[in-house]
Amino acid sequence: MAYRLVLLRHGTSEWNTKNLFTGWVDIDLNDVGREEAIRGGRMLADAGVLPDVVHTSVLRRAITTANMALDTCDRHWIPVRRSWRLNERHYGALQGLDKAATRERYGDEQFMLWRRSFDVPPPPIEVGSEYDQSGDPRYTGVEVPRTECLKDVIARMMPYWESDIQPDLAAGRTVLVTAHGNSLRALVKHLDRISDEDIAALNIPTGMPLVYELGDDFMPSRPGEYLDPEAAAAAAEAVANQGR
Amino acid sequence: MAYRLVLLRHGTSEWNTKNLFTGWVDIDLNDVGREEAIRGGRMLADAGVLPDVVHTSVLRRAITTANMALDTCDRHWIPVRRSWRLNERHYGALQGLDKAATRERYGDEQFMLWRRSFDVPPPPIEVGSEYDQSGDPRYTGVEVPRTECLKDVIARMMPYWESDIQPDLAAGRTVLVTAHGNSLRALVKHLDRISDEDIAALNIPTGMPLVYELGDDFMPSRPGEYLDPEAAAAAAEAVANQGR
Repeated sequence: MAYRLVLLRHGTSEWNTKNLFTGWVDIDLNDVGREEAIRGGRMLADAGVLPDVVHTSVLRRAITTANMALDTCDRHWIPVRRSWRLNERHYGALQGLDKAATRERYGDEQFMLWRRSFDVPPPPIEVGSEYDQSGDPRYTGVEVPRTECLKDVIARMMPYWESDIQPDLAAGRTVLVTAHGNSLRALVKHLDRISDEDIAALNIPTGMPLVYELGDDFMPSRPGEYLDPEAAAAAAEAVANQGR
Repeated sequence: MAYRLVLLRHGTSEWNTKNLFTGWVDIDLNDVGREEAIRGGRMLADAGVLPDVVHTSVLRRAITTANMALDTCDRHWIPVRRSWRLNERHYGALQGLDKAATRERYGDEQFMLWRRSFDVPPPPIEVGSEYDQSGDPRYTGVEVPRTECLKDVIARMMPYWESDIQPDLAAGRTVLVTAHGNSLRALVKHLDRISDEDIAALNIPTGMPLVYELGDDFMPSRPGEYLDPEAAAAAAEAVANQGR
């Protein structure tokens, strides 16, 4: 039995355009992002890859992307599951800061360390400051992080993969996960068995459905495939160049 | 302990404007309907009536209304449940027909009987005809009706009220139900203890949050209240005049 998993990174948000670190700040898609969501839904429809259930983070840019993509491929009616465990990496004290200015201020090395190192988180956000999420009702009962590295994201995302996503796959459902650059990098690292070092170079493009066929052990026999590989490669390149 | 329930009928759809019987045909909101959904969300936000969970039908006009209203009141992240049991009444062979033409052809009496009688359904739809829903993947495992009267809607809606909505209320959650003219009339008939005769005169306006406080027996001690009673009364009047 082969299980089918589709990963979709949310479209461009208002802060992607402004080149600000976003993390857990609940910023909406911009018009480009909404177009990307619709295009992603069209790709799913054209390929006949029709989700039976969708998992999203609790952040608006992922939720709206899922809503619009599913509406486009006539799958608006499928069951919906949400979890903070699929949220973007918490960017700590960098949330709300300009990426280029941060790069200039701290230098290339520190900047890339914060963006891409596996286990060095940015400085923690101050509780109660403008872009801190503690106290937000959607995180009632959750210990809201003050900063996260990719290793931290893996640690809080993987339990959800096992407890909530795998059972949907096991039931034979095509599962769509609509989430973020770093929560999806965490999952792809696991699925494609990417080392702690090599994951730094992996960029996931926005709005491009990435399809996996998984075996009984919920692992793929070959890497995931973008429905439009050329467009995905060009878009991943653009992500890599952010902050330049 | 008082439980809080909010009912919201979807905004105007493309077929409301065209004055066609819709039923289970999956027609989208029009621009007016999208405005109504946003206005409904604004009313919820202004009144501080913030849903903790949403139940919708599996029809696009209810789903989009819920998505837009919740996005507006910053509750896009709450859990979502969907069921065909919240669908609009199946309008049988009338689905896709013009309301005014139907009234003219069959006469006022027959027209009002089909629209408002408690237990006389319209003629059944022909299986495999343009607006028949059997075979739609969202109804896999469901015995899709060929026509329904309000009594039929009550019979398939009430089990869901008990099995799925009441437990959410019992957990102390403010529950939003985003559904349709007749599935909501069915629920309001039960809650407000309206007789089989009197329910004919009840019209539920589109996009107007209707709030109930319920006791331990999931029944209200007084009728539901619209957040904007004057606007709701004017809108209900407009519904009553459809087909004129």
